[in-house]
Amino acid sequence: MATDASFQRARRPEQKQQRQAAILDAARQLALRDGVRNVSLTDIAEKVGIHKSALLRYFETREQIFLELTAQSWLGWAEALHAGLDGGLAGSPGSPGSAELVADVVARSFADRPLLCDLIPHTALNHERHVSTSAVRRYKLTSLRAISDAAGVIHRVLADLTEVECREFISTMANLAGSLWQIANPPPALARLYTSDPELAQACVDLVPRLRRTAEILLAGMVPSRSPA
Amino acid sequence: MATDASFQRARRPEQKQQRQAAILDAARQLALRDGVRNVSLTDIAEKVGIHKSALLRYFETREQIFLELTAQSWLGWAEALHAGLDGGLAGSPGSPGSAELVADVVARSFADRPLLCDLIPHTALNHERHVSTSAVRRYKLTSLRAISDAAGVIHRVLADLTEVECREFISTMANLAGSLWQIANPPPALARLYTSDPELAQACVDLVPRLRRTAEILLAGMVPSRSPA
Repeated sequence: MATDASFQRARRPEQKQQRQAAILDAARQLALRDGVRNVSLTDIAEKVGIHKSALLRYFETREQIFLELTAQSWLGWAEALHAGLDGGLAGSPGSPGSAELVADVVARSFADRPLLCDLIPHTALNHERHVSTSAVRRYKLTSLRAISDAAGVIHRVLADLTEVECREFISTMANLAGSLWQIANPPPALARLYTSDPELAQACVDLVPRLRRTAEILLAGMVPSRSPA
Repeated sequence: MATDASFQRARRPEQKQQRQAAILDAARQLALRDGVRNVSLTDIAEKVGIHKSALLRYFETREQIFLELTAQSWLGWAEALHAGLDGGLAGSPGSPGSAELVADVVARSFADRPLLCDLIPHTALNHERHVSTSAVRRYKLTSLRAISDAAGVIHRVLADLTEVECREFISTMANLAGSLWQIANPPPALARLYTSDPELAQACVDLVPRLRRTAEILLAGMVPSRSPA
Protein backbone atom coordinates (compact mmCIF):
# COMPACT_ATOMS: atom_id res chain seq x y z
CA MET A 1 0.00 0.00 0.00
CA ALA A 2 2.06 2.91 -1.34
CA THR A 3 0.31 5.75 0.52
CA ASP A 4 0.57 3.86 3.76
CA ALA A 5 4.31 3.29 3.21
CA SER A 6 4.89 6.99 2.54
CA PHE A 7 3.09 7.72 5.83
CA GLN A 8 5.46 5.36 7.59
CA ARG A 9 8.42 7.34 6.36
CA ALA A 10 7.22 10.50 8.12
CA ARG A 11 10.07 10.75 10.60
CA ARG A 12 10.88 14.46 10.62
CA PRO A 13 8.70 16.83 12.67
CA GLU A 14 7.46 18.79 9.63
CA GLN A 15 6.49 15.55 7.89
CA LYS A 16 4.60 14.44 10.97
CA GLN A 17 2.81 17.76 11.02
CA GLN A 18 1.85 17.37 7.35
CA ARG A 19 0.38 13.96 8.09
CA GLN A 20 -1.54 15.27 11.06
CA ALA A 21 -2.87 18.16 8.98
CA ALA A 22 -4.01 15.75 6.24
CA ILE A 23 -5.83 13.59 8.80
CA LEU A 24 -7.51 16.61 10.39
CA ASP A 25 -8.51 17.91 6.98
CA ALA A 26 -10.11 14.59 6.04
CA ALA A 27 -12.01 14.47 9.34
CA ARG A 28 -13.18 18.05 8.84
CA GLN A 29 -14.51 17.37 5.36
CA LEU A 30 -16.32 14.20 6.43
CA ALA A 31 -17.81 15.83 9.54
CA LEU A 32 -19.12 18.77 7.52
CA ARG A 33 -20.67 16.41 4.97
CA ASP A 34 -22.03 13.66 7.22
CA GLY A 35 -22.21 15.17 10.71
CA VAL A 36 -19.66 14.53 13.47
CA ARG A 37 -21.71 11.66 14.91
CA ASN A 38 -21.48 9.66 11.67
CA VAL A 39 -17.74 9.82 11.07
CA SER A 40 -15.73 6.78 12.20
CA LEU A 41 -11.97 6.27 12.43
CA THR A 42 -12.24 3.90 9.46
CA ASP A 43 -13.95 6.61 7.37
CA ILE A 44 -11.14 9.05 8.15
CA ALA A 45 -8.41 6.49 7.40
CA GLU A 46 -10.07 5.60 4.06
CA LYS A 47 -10.39 9.26 3.10
CA VAL A 48 -6.67 9.88 3.84
CA GLY A 49 -5.73 6.63 2.11
CA ILE A 50 -3.96 4.93 4.99
CA HIS A 51 -4.65 2.02 7.27
CA LYS A 52 -6.37 2.66 10.60
CA SER A 53 -3.33 1.40 12.50
CA ALA A 54 -1.09 3.93 10.67
CA LEU A 55 -3.51 6.73 11.56
CA LEU A 56 -3.25 5.77 15.23
CA ARG A 57 0.44 6.69 15.19
CA TYR A 58 -0.65 10.32 14.84
CA PHE A 59 -3.72 10.46 17.09
CA GLU A 60 -4.75 8.46 20.15
CA THR A 61 -8.35 7.87 19.05
CA ARG A 62 -11.09 9.09 16.70
CA GLU A 63 -12.13 11.41 19.55
CA GLN A 64 -8.68 13.00 19.79
CA ILE A 65 -8.90 13.93 16.11
CA PHE A 66 -12.19 15.68 16.80
CA LEU A 67 -10.90 17.34 19.97
CA GLU A 68 -8.01 18.74 17.94
CA LEU A 69 -10.45 19.99 15.26
CA THR A 70 -12.51 21.62 18.01
CA ALA A 71 -9.43 23.40 19.38
CA GLN A 72 -8.62 24.71 15.88
CA SER A 73 -12.23 25.83 15.42
CA TRP A 74 -12.15 27.81 18.67
CA LEU A 75 -9.06 29.69 17.47
CA GLY A 76 -10.73 30.58 14.14
CA TRP A 77 -13.87 31.59 15.99
CA ALA A 78 -11.96 33.96 18.32
CA GLU A 79 -10.31 35.55 15.28
CA ALA A 80 -13.73 36.14 13.71
CA LEU A 81 -14.89 37.93 16.87
CA HIS A 82 -11.83 40.16 16.71
CA ALA A 83 -12.50 40.89 13.02
CA GLY A 84 -16.14 41.72 13.75
CA LEU A 85 -15.59 43.82 16.86
CA ASP A 86 -12.06 45.27 16.97
CA GLY A 87 -12.57 47.97 14.34
CA GLY A 88 -15.61 49.51 12.68
CA LEU A 89 -17.90 49.75 15.70
CA ALA A 90 -21.36 51.17 15.04
CA GLY A 91 -20.57 53.93 17.52
CA SER A 92 -17.90 54.41 20.13
CA PRO A 93 -17.49 51.68 22.76
CA GLY A 94 -20.38 51.69 25.21
CA SER A 95 -22.66 53.64 22.87
CA PRO A 96 -26.27 52.57 22.39
CA GLY A 97 -26.13 50.04 19.60
CA SER A 98 -22.95 48.36 20.86
CA ALA A 99 -24.92 45.59 22.56
CA GLU A 100 -26.89 44.99 19.35
CA LEU A 101 -23.63 44.83 17.40
CA VAL A 102 -22.07 42.39 19.87
CA ALA A 103 -25.22 40.23 19.82
CA ASP A 104 -25.22 40.13 16.03
CA VAL A 105 -21.49 39.39 15.66
CA VAL A 106 -21.62 36.68 18.33
CA ALA A 107 -24.70 35.03 16.80
CA ARG A 108 -23.05 34.92 13.38
CA SER A 109 -19.67 33.81 14.76
CA PHE A 110 -21.37 30.56 15.72
CA ALA A 111 -23.90 30.23 12.90
CA ASP A 112 -21.11 30.69 10.32
CA ARG A 113 -19.25 27.74 11.89
CA PRO A 114 -21.43 24.64 11.54
CA LEU A 115 -18.48 22.37 12.36
CA LEU A 116 -17.78 24.14 15.66
CA CYS A 117 -21.49 24.12 16.56
CA ASP A 118 -21.75 20.41 15.77
CA LEU A 119 -18.59 19.65 17.76
CA ILE A 120 -19.51 21.59 20.94
CA PRO A 121 -22.10 19.18 22.42
CA HIS A 122 -19.99 16.14 21.48
CA THR A 123 -17.04 17.50 23.46
CA ALA A 124 -18.18 16.89 27.04
CA LEU A 125 -20.59 14.13 26.00
CA ASN A 126 -18.12 11.97 24.08
CA HIS A 127 -14.80 13.30 22.89
CA GLU A 128 -13.24 14.25 26.25
CA ARG A 129 -14.17 10.80 27.56
CA HIS A 130 -12.15 8.85 25.03
CA VAL A 131 -8.74 10.49 25.12
CA SER A 132 -5.88 10.73 27.63
CA THR A 133 -6.02 13.28 30.44
CA SER A 134 -3.11 15.16 28.87
CA ALA A 135 -5.01 15.47 25.56
CA VAL A 136 -8.01 16.90 27.45
CA ARG A 137 -5.68 19.32 29.25
CA ARG A 138 -4.17 20.58 25.99
CA TYR A 139 -7.65 20.97 24.49
CA LYS A 140 -9.02 22.80 27.54
CA LEU A 141 -6.13 25.26 27.63
CA THR A 142 -6.83 26.20 24.00
CA SER A 143 -10.62 26.45 24.35
CA LEU A 144 -10.46 28.35 27.66
CA ARG A 145 -7.94 30.78 26.14
CA ALA A 146 -10.23 31.36 23.13
CA ILE A 147 -13.14 32.07 25.48
CA SER A 148 -11.00 34.46 27.59
CA ASP A 149 -9.80 36.18 24.45
CA ALA A 150 -13.39 36.60 23.21
CA ALA A 151 -14.47 37.89 26.63
CA GLY A 152 -11.67 40.48 26.42
CA VAL A 153 -12.82 41.68 22.97
CA ILE A 154 -16.41 42.04 24.18
CA HIS A 155 -15.29 43.79 27.36
CA ARG A 156 -13.52 46.44 25.27
CA VAL A 157 -16.79 47.16 23.41
CA LEU A 158 -19.12 46.85 26.39
CA ALA A 159 -17.09 48.48 29.13
CA ASP A 160 -20.10 48.49 31.53
CA LEU A 161 -19.67 44.75 31.90
CA THR A 162 -16.87 43.16 33.90
CA GLU A 163 -14.60 40.63 32.21
CA VAL A 164 -16.13 37.90 34.34
CA GLU A 165 -19.58 38.89 33.07
CA CYS A 166 -18.33 38.89 29.47
CA ARG A 167 -16.95 35.39 30.01
CA GLU A 168 -20.26 34.21 31.51
CA PHE A 169 -22.05 35.68 28.51
CA ILE A 170 -19.86 34.08 25.88
CA SER A 171 -19.72 30.67 27.62
CA THR A 172 -23.49 30.63 27.80
CA MET A 173 -23.74 31.58 24.13
CA ALA A 174 -21.31 28.79 23.19
CA ASN A 175 -23.30 26.16 25.06
CA LEU A 176 -26.53 27.41 23.52
CA ALA A 177 -25.07 27.53 20.01
CA GLY A 178 -24.06 23.88 20.40
CA SER A 179 -27.45 22.67 21.56
CA LEU A 180 -29.57 24.91 19.31
CA TRP A 181 -27.56 23.97 16.22
CA GLN A 182 -28.50 20.32 16.72
CA ILE A 183 -32.17 21.28 17.08
CA ALA A 184 -32.01 23.64 14.08
CA ASN A 185 -30.50 20.91 11.89
CA PRO A 186 -32.72 17.84 12.21
CA PRO A 187 -32.52 14.97 9.70
CA PRO A 188 -34.63 15.60 6.53
CA ALA A 189 -37.57 13.40 7.62
CA LEU A 190 -37.92 15.34 10.88
CA ALA A 191 -37.49 18.71 9.17
CA ARG A 192 -40.46 17.80 6.95
CA LEU A 193 -42.46 16.65 9.97
CA TYR A 194 -41.85 19.88 11.90
CA THR A 195 -42.77 22.17 9.02
CA SER A 196 -45.82 20.16 7.94
CA ASP A 197 -47.47 19.77 11.34
CA PRO A 198 -48.78 23.01 12.91
CA GLU A 199 -48.75 21.42 16.38
CA LEU A 200 -44.98 21.00 16.03
CA ALA A 201 -44.21 24.54 14.82
CA GLN A 202 -42.41 25.25 18.11
CA ALA A 203 -39.95 22.45 17.31
CA CYS A 204 -38.46 24.56 14.47
CA VAL A 205 -35.53 26.77 15.43
CA ASP A 206 -34.07 29.49 13.21
CA LEU A 207 -30.48 29.66 14.48
CA VAL A 208 -29.25 33.23 13.83
CA PRO A 209 -32.35 35.14 15.06
CA ARG A 210 -32.64 32.86 18.07
CA LEU A 211 -28.98 33.25 19.07
CA ARG A 212 -29.06 37.00 18.42
CA ARG A 213 -32.20 37.49 20.51
CA THR A 214 -30.80 35.45 23.41
CA ALA A 215 -27.54 37.41 23.25
CA GLU A 216 -29.49 40.68 23.44
CA ILE A 217 -31.47 39.44 26.45
CA LEU A 218 -28.32 38.29 28.26
CA LEU A 219 -26.47 41.55 27.60
CA ALA A 220 -29.45 43.64 28.71
CA GLY A 221 -29.91 41.60 31.90
CA MET A 222 -26.32 41.40 33.10
CA VAL A 223 -26.10 44.74 34.95
CA PRO A 224 -29.66 44.95 36.40
CA SER A 225 -29.38 41.41 37.81
CA ARG A 226 -26.13 42.05 39.69
CA SER A 227 -26.47 41.14 43.34
CA PRO A 228 -26.09 44.11 45.69
CA ALA A 229 -22.43 44.55 46.65
CA MET B 1 -36.25 -18.96 30.06
CA ALA B 2 -39.14 -18.47 32.46
CA THR B 3 -39.14 -14.66 32.67
CA ASP B 4 -39.03 -14.39 28.91
CA ALA B 5 -41.98 -16.81 28.60
CA SER B 6 -44.06 -14.77 31.02
CA PHE B 7 -43.28 -11.69 28.89
CA GLN B 8 -44.54 -13.52 25.82
CA ARG B 9 -47.89 -14.10 27.50
CA ALA B 10 -48.53 -10.34 27.84
CA ARG B 11 -51.51 -10.09 25.52
CA ARG B 12 -53.90 -7.82 27.41
CA PRO B 13 -53.33 -4.04 27.28
CA GLU B 14 -52.68 -3.71 31.01
CA GLN B 15 -50.13 -6.51 30.82
CA LYS B 16 -48.38 -4.80 27.94
CA GLN B 17 -48.30 -1.61 29.97
CA GLN B 18 -46.75 -3.44 32.91
CA ARG B 19 -44.04 -4.81 30.62
CA GLN B 20 -43.35 -1.40 29.17
CA ALA B 21 -43.17 0.11 32.64
CA ALA B 22 -40.70 -2.60 33.75
CA ILE B 23 -38.48 -1.92 30.71
CA LEU B 24 -38.57 1.85 31.28
CA ASP B 25 -37.78 1.35 34.95
CA ALA B 26 -34.76 -0.81 34.13
CA ALA B 27 -33.50 1.75 31.60
CA ARG B 28 -33.98 4.57 34.15
CA GLN B 29 -32.00 2.75 36.85
CA LEU B 30 -29.16 1.88 34.48
CA ALA B 31 -29.00 5.42 33.01
CA LEU B 32 -28.86 6.98 36.47
CA ARG B 33 -26.08 4.60 37.51
CA ASP B 34 -23.97 4.48 34.34
CA GLY B 35 -24.98 7.55 32.30
CA VAL B 36 -27.35 7.47 29.31
CA ARG B 37 -24.45 7.12 26.85
CA ASN B 38 -23.32 3.84 28.39
CA VAL B 39 -26.62 1.94 28.47
CA SER B 40 -27.19 -0.49 25.58
CA LEU B 41 -30.32 -2.39 24.59
CA THR B 42 -28.60 -5.58 25.78
CA ASP B 43 -27.99 -4.02 29.22
CA ILE B 44 -31.68 -3.13 29.52
CA ALA B 45 -32.84 -6.57 28.36
CA GLU B 46 -30.52 -8.27 30.86
CA LYS B 47 -31.72 -6.06 33.70
CA VAL B 48 -35.39 -6.87 32.91
CA GLY B 49 -34.52 -10.53 32.44
CA ILE B 50 -35.74 -10.97 28.88
CA HIS B 51 -34.16 -11.50 25.51
CA LYS B 52 -33.41 -8.46 23.36
CA SER B 53 -35.80 -9.68 20.66
CA ALA B 54 -38.64 -9.86 23.22
CA LEU B 55 -37.89 -6.32 24.34
CA LEU B 56 -38.21 -5.10 20.76
CA ARG B 57 -41.88 -6.12 20.79
CA TYR B 58 -42.47 -3.22 23.20
CA PHE B 59 -40.13 -0.54 21.87
CA GLU B 60 -38.77 0.16 18.38
CA THR B 61 -35.19 0.74 19.48
CA ARG B 62 -32.97 1.56 22.47
CA GLU B 63 -33.48 5.21 21.54
CA GLN B 64 -37.27 4.94 21.71
CA ILE B 65 -36.97 3.69 25.28
CA PHE B 66 -34.93 6.77 26.15
CA LEU B 67 -37.26 9.10 24.26
CA GLU B 68 -40.16 7.71 26.28
CA LEU B 69 -38.18 8.22 29.52
CA THR B 70 -37.46 11.80 28.44
CA ALA B 71 -41.17 12.44 27.84
CA GLN B 72 -41.97 11.11 31.33
CA SER B 73 -39.21 13.25 32.83
CA TRP B 74 -40.62 16.40 31.22
CA LEU B 75 -44.00 15.70 32.81
CA GLY B 76 -42.46 15.27 36.26
CA TRP B 77 -40.40 18.40 35.74
CA ALA B 78 -43.46 20.50 34.83
CA GLU B 79 -45.21 19.24 37.99
CA ALA B 80 -42.22 20.33 40.08
CA LEU B 81 -42.44 23.83 38.61
CA HIS B 82 -46.12 23.96 39.54
CA ALA B 83 -45.33 22.78 43.06
CA GLY B 84 -42.60 25.39 43.44
CA LEU B 85 -44.45 28.33 41.95
CA ASP B 86 -48.23 27.85 42.16
CA GLY B 87 -48.60 28.55 45.86
CA GLY B 88 -46.34 29.98 48.51
CA LEU B 89 -44.86 32.87 46.52
CA ALA B 90 -42.37 35.05 48.35
CA GLY B 91 -44.60 38.01 47.63
CA SER B 92 -47.57 38.60 45.38
CA PRO B 93 -47.09 37.95 41.64
CA GLY B 94 -44.90 40.58 40.04
CA SER B 95 -43.42 41.69 43.38
CA PRO B 96 -39.68 42.28 43.69
CA GLY B 97 -38.28 38.90 44.55
CA SER B 98 -40.53 37.00 42.14
CA ALA B 99 -37.80 36.81 39.50
CA GLU B 100 -35.32 35.52 42.11
CA LEU B 101 -37.86 32.91 43.18
CA VAL B 102 -38.50 31.81 39.59
CA ALA B 103 -34.75 31.65 38.89
CA ASP B 104 -34.18 29.52 41.97
CA VAL B 105 -37.10 27.14 41.34
CA VAL B 106 -36.16 26.72 37.67
CA ALA B 107 -32.47 26.08 38.48
CA ARG B 108 -33.41 23.41 41.01
CA SER B 109 -36.10 21.87 38.77
CA PHE B 110 -33.27 20.84 36.44
CA ALA B 111 -30.49 20.19 38.94
CA ASP B 112 -32.81 17.88 40.94
CA ARG B 113 -33.35 15.80 37.77
CA PRO B 114 -29.99 14.38 36.68
CA LEU B 115 -31.72 11.91 34.36
CA LEU B 116 -33.59 14.65 32.49
CA CYS B 117 -30.43 16.78 32.26
CA ASP B 118 -28.43 13.83 30.93
CA LEU B 119 -31.19 12.96 28.43
CA ILE B 120 -31.69 16.48 26.99
CA PRO B 121 -28.53 16.73 24.81
CA HIS B 122 -28.91 13.12 23.63
CA THR B 123 -32.41 13.85 22.33
CA ALA B 124 -31.64 15.89 19.18
CA LEU B 125 -28.14 14.44 18.88
CA ASN B 126 -29.08 10.76 18.94
CA HIS B 127 -32.44 9.58 20.19
CA GLU B 128 -34.72 11.39 17.71
CA ARG B 129 -32.56 10.05 14.87
CA HIS B 130 -33.12 6.38 15.61
CA VAL B 131 -36.87 6.08 15.95
CA SER B 132 -39.87 6.37 13.61
CA THR B 133 -41.27 9.77 12.70
CA SER B 134 -44.45 8.95 14.61
CA ALA B 135 -42.45 8.22 17.77
CA VAL B 136 -40.70 11.59 17.43
CA ARG B 137 -44.09 13.26 16.93
CA ARG B 138 -45.51 11.70 20.11
CA TYR B 139 -42.40 12.71 22.04
CA LYS B 140 -42.42 16.28 20.72
CA LEU B 141 -46.09 16.79 21.58
CA THR B 142 -45.38 15.80 25.18
CA SER B 143 -42.20 17.85 25.57
CA LEU B 144 -43.65 20.94 23.87
CA ARG B 145 -46.73 20.70 26.08
CA ALA B 146 -44.55 20.51 29.20
CA ILE B 147 -42.60 23.59 28.06
CA SER B 148 -45.87 25.48 27.34
CA ASP B 149 -47.25 24.46 30.69
CA ALA B 150 -44.09 25.68 32.44
CA ALA B 151 -44.19 28.94 30.47
CA GLY B 152 -47.79 29.43 31.68
CA VAL B 153 -46.82 28.89 35.33
CA ILE B 154 -43.98 31.41 35.05
CA HIS B 155 -46.20 33.90 33.23
CA ARG B 156 -48.63 33.84 36.16
CA VAL B 157 -45.81 34.80 38.55
CA LEU B 158 -44.02 37.26 36.24
CA ALA B 159 -46.95 39.02 34.57
CA ASP B 160 -44.64 41.66 33.01
CA LEU B 161 -43.39 39.00 30.61
CA THR B 162 -45.45 37.71 27.70
CA GLU B 163 -46.11 33.98 27.39
CA VAL B 164 -43.82 33.89 24.35
CA GLU B 165 -41.03 35.43 26.42
CA CYS B 166 -41.63 32.92 29.23
CA ARG B 167 -41.37 30.11 26.67
CA GLU B 168 -38.12 31.56 25.26
CA PHE B 169 -36.78 31.77 28.79
CA ILE B 170 -37.62 28.23 29.79
CA SER B 171 -36.49 26.69 26.46
CA THR B 172 -33.15 28.43 26.83
CA MET B 173 -32.83 27.21 30.41
CA ALA B 174 -33.62 23.63 29.32
CA ASN B 175 -30.94 23.67 26.62
CA LEU B 176 -28.42 25.16 29.03
CA ALA B 177 -29.28 22.68 31.77
CA GLY B 178 -28.60 19.86 29.32
CA SER B 179 -25.23 21.13 28.19
CA LEU B 180 -24.03 22.42 31.57
CA TRP B 181 -24.95 19.19 33.32
CA GLN B 182 -22.56 17.28 31.06
CA ILE B 183 -19.79 19.79 31.80
CA ALA B 184 -20.57 19.76 35.54
CA ASN B 185 -20.38 15.96 35.64
CA PRO B 186 -17.10 14.93 34.04
CA PRO B 187 -15.65 11.44 34.50
CA PRO B 188 -13.61 11.11 37.76
CA ALA B 189 -10.18 11.44 36.08
CA LEU B 190 -11.20 14.75 34.49
CA ALA B 191 -12.85 16.02 37.67
CA ARG B 192 -9.49 15.46 39.44
CA LEU B 193 -7.63 17.20 36.62
CA TYR B 194 -9.87 20.28 36.70
CA THR B 195 -9.68 20.73 40.46
CA SER B 196 -5.93 20.06 40.71
CA ASP B 197 -4.77 22.40 37.91
CA PRO B 198 -5.29 26.13 38.58
CA GLU B 199 -5.12 26.89 34.82
CA LEU B 200 -8.20 24.72 34.34
CA ALA B 201 -10.28 26.23 37.14
CA GLN B 202 -12.67 27.73 34.58
CA ALA B 203 -13.49 24.22 33.36
CA CYS B 204 -15.33 23.50 36.63
CA VAL B 205 -19.04 24.28 36.64
CA ASP B 206 -21.23 24.36 39.73
CA LEU B 207 -24.65 23.56 38.30
CA VAL B 208 -27.23 25.19 40.60
CA PRO B 209 -25.51 28.59 41.07
CA ARG B 210 -24.65 28.78 37.38
CA LEU B 211 -28.21 27.96 36.25
CA ARG B 212 -29.71 30.30 38.85
CA ARG B 213 -27.46 33.19 37.84
CA THR B 214 -28.20 32.70 34.12
CA ALA B 215 -31.94 32.57 34.85
CA GLU B 216 -31.69 35.85 36.77
CA ILE B 217 -29.81 37.51 33.88
CA LEU B 218 -32.35 36.28 31.32
CA LEU B 219 -35.34 37.40 33.38
CA ALA B 220 -33.80 40.83 34.04
CA GLY B 221 -32.94 41.32 30.36
CA MET B 222 -36.20 40.25 28.74
CA VAL B 223 -38.14 43.52 29.01
CA PRO B 224 -35.28 46.05 28.43
CA SER B 225 -34.15 44.17 25.28
CA ARG B 226 -37.57 44.20 23.61
CA SER B 227 -37.37 45.72 20.15
CA PRO B 228 -39.36 48.98 19.85
CA ALA B 229 -42.96 48.20 18.78
